[in-house]
Amino acid sequence: MALFKRLLTKACDHGIDDPRKMFHCLKVGAALTIVSLFYYIRLLYDGFGGNALWALMTVVVVFEYTVGGTLYKSLNRIGATTLAGFLALGSHWIASQAGHRFEPVIMEISLFVIALVTTLSRFIPVVKARYDYGCTIFILTYGLVLVSGYRVEKLMDVAMQRLSTIMIGTFLCIIISILVCPIWAGIELHLLIACNMDKLANSLESCVAEYFSDGDEESKKRLQDYRFVLSSKASEESMAEFARWEPAHGPFGFKHPWKNYIKVGSSLRSCAYCIETLVSCLDSRHQVPETIRNHLRASCLSLSSSSSNVIRVLSTTVSSMTRSNQTDNVIKEMKDAVQESQNNLKTLSGILIRSHEEQVMKYELQDIIPLVTFVSLLIEISSRIEGGIVKTVEELAHSAEFEQSEDEMDLPMAHVGSKIVGKEENMIALQRV
Amino acid sequence: MALFKRLLTKACDHGIDDPRKMFHCLKVGAALTIVSLFYYIRLLYDGFGGNALWALMTVVVVFEYTVGGTLYKSLNRIGATTLAGFLALGSHWIASQAGHRFEPVIMEISLFVIALVTTLSRFIPVVKARYDYGCTIFILTYGLVLVSGYRVEKLMDVAMQRLSTIMIGTFLCIIISILVCPIWAGIELHLLIACNMDKLANSLESCVAEYFSDGDEESKKRLQDYRFVLSSKASEESMAEFARWEPAHGPFGFKHPWKNYIKVGSSLRSCAYCIETLVSCLDSRHQVPETIRNHLRASCLSLSSSSSNVIRVLSTTVSSMTRSNQTDNVIKEMKDAVQESQNNLKTLSGILIRSHEEQVMKYELQDIIPLVTFVSLLIEISSRIEGGIVKTVEELAHSAEFEQSEDEMDLPMAHVGSKIVGKEENMIALQRV
Repeated sequence: MALFKRLLTKACDHGIDDPRKMFHCLKVGAALTIVSLFYYIRLLYDGFGGNALWALMTVVVVFEYTVGGTLYKSLNRIGATTLAGFLALGSHWIASQAGHRFEPVIMEISLFVIALVTTLSRFIPVVKARYDYGCTIFILTYGLVLVSGYRVEKLMDVAMQRLSTIMIGTFLCIIISILVCPIWAGIELHLLIACNMDKLANSLESCVAEYFSDGDEESKKRLQDYRFVLSSKASEESMAEFARWEPAHGPFGFKHPWKNYIKVGSSLRSCAYCIETLVSCLDSRHQVPETIRNHLRASCLSLSSSSSNVIRVLSTTVSSMTRSNQTDNVIKEMKDAVQESQNNLKTLSGILIRSHEEQVMKYELQDIIPLVTFVSLLIEISSRIEGGIVKTVEELAHSAEFEQSEDEMDLPMAHVGSKIVGKEENMIALQRV
Repeated sequence: MALFKRLLTKACDHGIDDPRKMFHCLKVGAALTIVSLFYYIRLLYDGFGGNALWALMTVVVVFEYTVGGTLYKSLNRIGATTLAGFLALGSHWIASQAGHRFEPVIMEISLFVIALVTTLSRFIPVVKARYDYGCTIFILTYGLVLVSGYRVEKLMDVAMQRLSTIMIGTFLCIIISILVCPIWAGIELHLLIACNMDKLANSLESCVAEYFSDGDEESKKRLQDYRFVLSSKASEESMAEFARWEPAHGPFGFKHPWKNYIKVGSSLRSCAYCIETLVSCLDSRHQVPETIRNHLRASCLSLSSSSSNVIRVLSTTVSSMTRSNQTDNVIKEMKDAVQESQNNLKTLSGILIRSHEEQVMKYELQDIIPLVTFVSLLIEISSRIEGGIVKTVEELAHSAEFEQSEDEMDLPMAHVGSKIVGKEENMIALQRV
């Protein structure tokens, strides 16, 4: 009882934390209550008989958190039930021609083969991703109709009733999940990618700030933000898969290139791997003499802020679905900063040699190795941004036909900040779609 | 039809590629055929009536690829059905006291509340991981029994019949999945972790060999092996979750510390992130003058081979479940190699200065930066091996009470190779358990 109470408290906390979860649960409860009415109202009961239970069952099994998830399960269920139903009726007819004695044998063999082939095809990745639930329902319906067929007289009626109750259940789920506070897998994916980009930019900026002892409490917190990017692969993939099933909604057409988001996601992760290594460089920062660190401080901070800017502008491009005219500018700034950092690295050579010649304050190569590694990684990250994130976002913008923004043709860099505030509003607006 | 044929060919290819998949499908087919016999044999049919269909349904829904998966679903199904059945009977009794008019109202409200709370509790991570399927079945059974209760007279009988047919179905699945060529989630996880360790060692060795133009065709192929490690997080976690449900099998007790494998898995991934960055250093290797590269060649190759050795010895520790006496030796060798590499890096300082003073062949700092970065990353990787993989494997060995190997107290390093061959046999033996 105490366990149950703790569970209840925890569940309620979850509901209060995220009202959308609470709404989802209310929707499931409402759908179930409505569908159980079919059973109570005698008229409908007389129409469908015990099969009305299938509608209840359908609602429980099919209702998912996102519209895409619900549609995936609904369409799989309807498709597989129809297909398996007809196939079972056919098998039944063939078996019945073989006489009463061989009928069960033929039917058992057909069930075995169908189960075998369907289970095997579930191992094919495409089938697994898109029709896994359909495969279960296919075997299930085939088995049920075939086996019932041996006893129940009006087999066709049973099959049609089962199908119609399932359709009532799925349509109810689809309607409720689309009309009442819909949670679109597409929008979730869209926001997740944009949000992950911002997190990556935060981590990068914080890490460099920390390295040059330039960070505050806020930046310490943001340092680990890149971990979200590392761990969001599975949810990105499942959401992209669900988004395929969704009709056009808000700014997204029916053929929106969801798989491009997956590509952006992996380019983000490729950057995140490098940032992970960069963060581990923080431990060795105190081995580098203060003077030498200060020598590279300005160029590194400028490189990290311009790299983060590129990511943030691209994040705005994704979230607002508008190509920014800023992109080329910020990329150019990043390239300049890379050049500057490389030049500064070269001058370290001179410092080493001078320190050796003058013998006043002797620096050795090993003093600067951690710094050299740090800067090299920083340069590698900006090259991954350019070759990965910029490219994949460009591809996404191309396939999804993002518009070109017009009103900020010659905006100076200072306005990028206000653009990002605009994006937050945009996100909230998107969430309300 | 052409699509169906292509699907069939593809499915068969999968079955031939991995006979275990084929066996799984045969097992599913057999279980379904056996359970459908219940329906055909009149005696049993008279006993269970139309409810025998629940047994067929249970088999379709519950039979998973691994024993752990099947047990997870079976136990969830039985537990949730029992719990929800009794709860529904209770609610039904309470509602029936309220008179015929209020009965449906009370029942509808109870259904709504149960659906709401159960759906909400699915958002709690622990519930999601272990009882997600149980939650679905809980709402389902509650709804079915409650709603049927309004019509069907002998409610208790229906509930018991449903429960007993479900138990027949689940027991059949459990027996078949354990007795016929069982695929244990625990063993799969165990082998996956050991195999991932070997892959990491392969990648590390190949990458360094490639850097110093010392690689062959084989090593080019192995270069990307670390990607398996990056992408196996989801399967590691689901297998560890399933393994918890499995009874003792082979060398694994009932309380085998599966969550320690997850820890080893994340320490492997932390290394893999760094190796990913290391591999991207390959592009810039030709910027480093040959002479300078050769200067560090021996120490880097020795560092990479000793680091890989540590990983391989630990992999053997995991797969054979025996602590190797070699571990301390190989770790010491790795530390020595790190020291040697660091010393060699220091001497680069001298080369730079001499080249500046003698002006014969002038090297600049930027010539050696890519190499310095490469070696620093290599050192970082060995520190992650020591602080991550060694530690987590040690924890695993401690919690799982791995035995100390006795027969190789003073074996020289050359024998490590033969130990690895022994491991492969061990893996095959494990797979036969």
